[in-house]
Amino acid sequence: MKIAVYPGSFDPVTEGHIDIIDRASKIFDLLYVAVISNPEKAPIFGMKERLSMLEESLSGKKNIKVDNFDGLLVDYAKKVKATSIVRGLRAVSDFDYEFQMALTNRRLDPDVETVFMMTDYKYSYLSSSLVKQVAALGGTVKGLVPPPVEKRLRALKKKGF
Amino acid sequence: MKIAVYPGSFDPVTEGHIDIIDRASKIFDLLYVAVISNPEKAPIFGMKERLSMLEESLSGKKNIKVDNFDGLLVDYAKKVKATSIVRGLRAVSDFDYEFQMALTNRRLDPDVETVFMMTDYKYSYLSSSLVKQVAALGGTVKGLVPPPVEKRLRALKKKGF
Amino acid sequence: MKIAVYPGSFDPVTEGHIDIIDRASKIFDLLYVAVISNPEKAPIFGMKERLSMLEESLSGKKNIKVDNFDGLLVDYAKKVKATSIVRGLRAVSDFDYEFQMALTNRRLDPDVETVFMMTDYKYSYLSSSLVKQVAALGGTVKGLVPPPVEKRLRALKKKGF
Amino acid sequence: MKIAVYPGSFDPVTEGHIDIIDRASKIFDLLYVAVISNPEKAPIFGMKERLSMLEESLSGKKNIKVDNFDGLLVDYAKKVKATSIVRGLRAVSDFDYEFQMALTNRRLDPDVETVFMMTDYKYSYLSSSLVKQVAALGGTVKGLVPPPVEKRLRALKKKGF
Amino acid sequence: MKIAVYPGSFDPVTEGHIDIIDRASKIFDLLYVAVISNPEKAPIFGMKERLSMLEESLSGKKNIKVDNFDGLLVDYAKKVKATSIVRGLRAVSDFDYEFQMALTNRRLDPDVETVFMMTDYKYSYLSSSLVKQVAALGGTVKGLVPPPVEKRLRALKKKGF
Amino acid sequence: MKIAVYPGSFDPVTEGHIDIIDRASKIFDLLYVAVISNPEKAPIFGMKERLSMLEESLSGKKNIKVDNFDGLLVDYAKKVKATSIVRGLRAVSDFDYEFQMALTNRRLDPDVETVFMMTDYKYSYLSSSLVKQVAALGGTVKGLVPPPVEKRLRALKKKGF
Repeated sequence: MKIAVYPGSFDPVTEGHIDIIDRASKIFDLLYVAVISNPEKAPIFGMKERLSMLEESLSGKKNIKVDNFDGLLVDYAKKVKATSIVRGLRAVSDFDYEFQMALTNRRLDPDVETVFMMTDYKYSYLSSSLVKQVAALGGTVKGLVPPPVEKRLRALKKKGF
Repeated sequence: MKIAVYPGSFDPVTEGHIDIIDRASKIFDLLYVAVISNPEKAPIFGMKERLSMLEESLSGKKNIKVDNFDGLLVDYAKKVKATSIVRGLRAVSDFDYEFQMALTNRRLDPDVETVFMMTDYKYSYLSSSLVKQVAALGGTVKGLVPPPVEKRLRALKKKGF
Repeated sequence: MKIAVYPGSFDPVTEGHIDIIDRASKIFDLLYVAVISNPEKAPIFGMKERLSMLEESLSGKKNIKVDNFDGLLVDYAKKVKATSIVRGLRAVSDFDYEFQMALTNRRLDPDVETVFMMTDYKYSYLSSSLVKQVAALGGTVKGLVPPPVEKRLRALKKKGF
Repeated sequence: MKIAVYPGSFDPVTEGHIDIIDRASKIFDLLYVAVISNPEKAPIFGMKERLSMLEESLSGKKNIKVDNFDGLLVDYAKKVKATSIVRGLRAVSDFDYEFQMALTNRRLDPDVETVFMMTDYKYSYLSSSLVKQVAALGGTVKGLVPPPVEKRLRALKKKGF
Repeated sequence: MKIAVYPGSFDPVTEGHIDIIDRASKIFDLLYVAVISNPEKAPIFGMKERLSMLEESLSGKKNIKVDNFDGLLVDYAKKVKATSIVRGLRAVSDFDYEFQMALTNRRLDPDVETVFMMTDYKYSYLSSSLVKQVAALGGTVKGLVPPPVEKRLRALKKKGF
Repeated sequence: MKIAVYPGSFDPVTEGHIDIIDRASKIFDLLYVAVISNPEKAPIFGMKERLSMLEESLSGKKNIKVDNFDGLLVDYAKKVKATSIVRGLRAVSDFDYEFQMALTNRRLDPDVETVFMMTDYKYSYLSSSLVKQVAALGGTVKGLVPPPVEKRLRALKKKGF
């Protein structure tokens, strides 16, 4: 059984992430969507909420598990018996950072391979931070994020984030 | 069973290609290494020789098949029941071309997914055309190509290519 | 009156070009779509056919004129009283070349300004050479080029280009 | 009448910005130079000072209006009846961010088009943050910023910013 | 005598830095490895510790002097009679920033030339911030940093940085 | 004595090349400007003419020698006792190719180091092929190439190249 991990902050999950998850779940037998617990960076959504948004957005897909982890990604991969890490590539600006991380993870554990996949071109410009920026300025994020996320961003906007 | 195609000119196969083939053969159950019959471009090695060099360099690996094709890559993928195309990414200069091809293939057949993998950093600067250039100028290509290729390049140099 | 030139080989015109022409024709009062007569490069479509395909694809748009030129682009711009050159930007790989050309044209004539516009993301991977490659291999180019171009590419394929 | 917006933080305005404003004011009938009120980011110059520096640096140019806005850029564009957004492109590192913003703005309002222009090559390496860094370390910024900005940066340096 | 400066934060020095220092010390007669005193950025290692780590990692190399400076780099270069600044280039993402700095330094003092060198490919993905990130998450940094740095990072991890 | 090689096709030499030669000749004690004899590529100027144009453009500079070579660059470097190869970097598009060549040369001979230098920004968009293109279309290349080159390009244009 081929197991893979798709790690990320998912603060919040976007339609671009969902697109990559869909594509990766066809290649691997089991896909862990793994939310990073990064205590240093202040997310706008807490871990619990980020996990809920993922669960609600992915409901019904059988070979996908939503999880969270801290520590090294390769240690988490080993724990869940994953041999692949999935990363989305959108643009040249992702490239150097993603390669640096992939080479570092390969060094930390040569048995875990990073594979890169491309989102649909209609999400090629999409990122969590862009979504937050647009929502904070009062713009609509419909179609950029799944409905459960849109709802929460609207609630957040009302409270004035 | 997850089947993938790794297409290329392989004129000639390099250690960078072999590295990607090794990595991809761990992710997929069956990997077709498929040499492109491009009648317009004049390769220095004929199709038969390119297939032989691949066979000799890959001998002993069970879930890898060497093959050739002409026409559209997605049609070949469908024929061999592959649902993934594997491509190596080395550097930013590969990026735009590879994305263009991946988006085109996705448009031609949305059921075939392109996945990108990274070579070992020690092959990150390696390409078939570089190998040919170095060999033509009399430099050593040992370690850059598998021994069966090195032998043929040396023979070619003697004949004065 | 603001007049601009949109120069290109248009061998053949794609939906990406049409998209840029549409957008530019809203910004400028008059737009010359100017086909380059490059005697060195062998186009697959002759000048007459490239002009016809543009005319047929753009019919009904009032402030757009299809034309051709040889010599320096800035000399052509001066002749038609254009003060702007329009260029589409799709990807990072276009960037350096386009900047080099824009800086050269600025040096040759500082009164002509180059402005860059973006195609719709759904054409971001599209180029004339990609279209020709797909058509030559028997793939469909529907939606990538206007119908008058599609028809001609199909005819060319039958004759075996 | 073709109206455009040139948005930015202008903290402070540089000769590179002035160069883009000059070029854009020849293409559009009216150009709004619009300073962003970003409450989150702490600028070194307040809104009032940034507006004054722009006014003093641009005095005498007739079809240019200095203004400020908060909220979404496309909403501001609609308010002032602008149909174009002008952005300067200097280097590849600007590219992905600018494209992301342009595609987002196009999605938020398809009637507003982003056009990119190039600064003179002698300002290609210039940015507000570079100017602040050089001034803070005691280097001269003469020629990099208009005289009204240079004066204020020198005053700031004396107070020890 | 050709004197050069290799400036950096060195927070901490990595094997990639050491590699550039080695290469540069063969080209120049005297090389100053100059640690930047940047009061704004909070380094994880103090200036004294950064200097010690460099001294211990470079012991025995004769034409290399470890030093620190504040203010403009070109002023420091003039003070130590250096006519060249050495910078390592690893990846495309370094490129624009490095060029911006080099052009700025050239403007501030045209007599000081920046030369770029490449690290060994095995360090091409390495940076001080990556090293800190891996160490903080409990990963091994052996081979990525000189032993005196590895020891200190392990001590820091125990104290919980 | 530090000896370096600055290799190139110089078909023809541009002011950008001259700028790099000037800068490199201040860093190295002796600089070989070495014209590549590439029998495959058809230059517009023969080897003799390319050497003459360099000699005439560089006259009076003492530590610069104009030469030509065929075969591997590292073999030529060894022959003239050079330990450095100088290359100009202009733009991101140069980057990947230059790094590939530098890593290949390092592999072929680890004792020869490649150093990269930047041209003056006013030549950042300049290349030999651009110069030929502009000259062939009848544009002026004054200021882009040294006078001895300008004269020859004008003669070539008259004959109709």
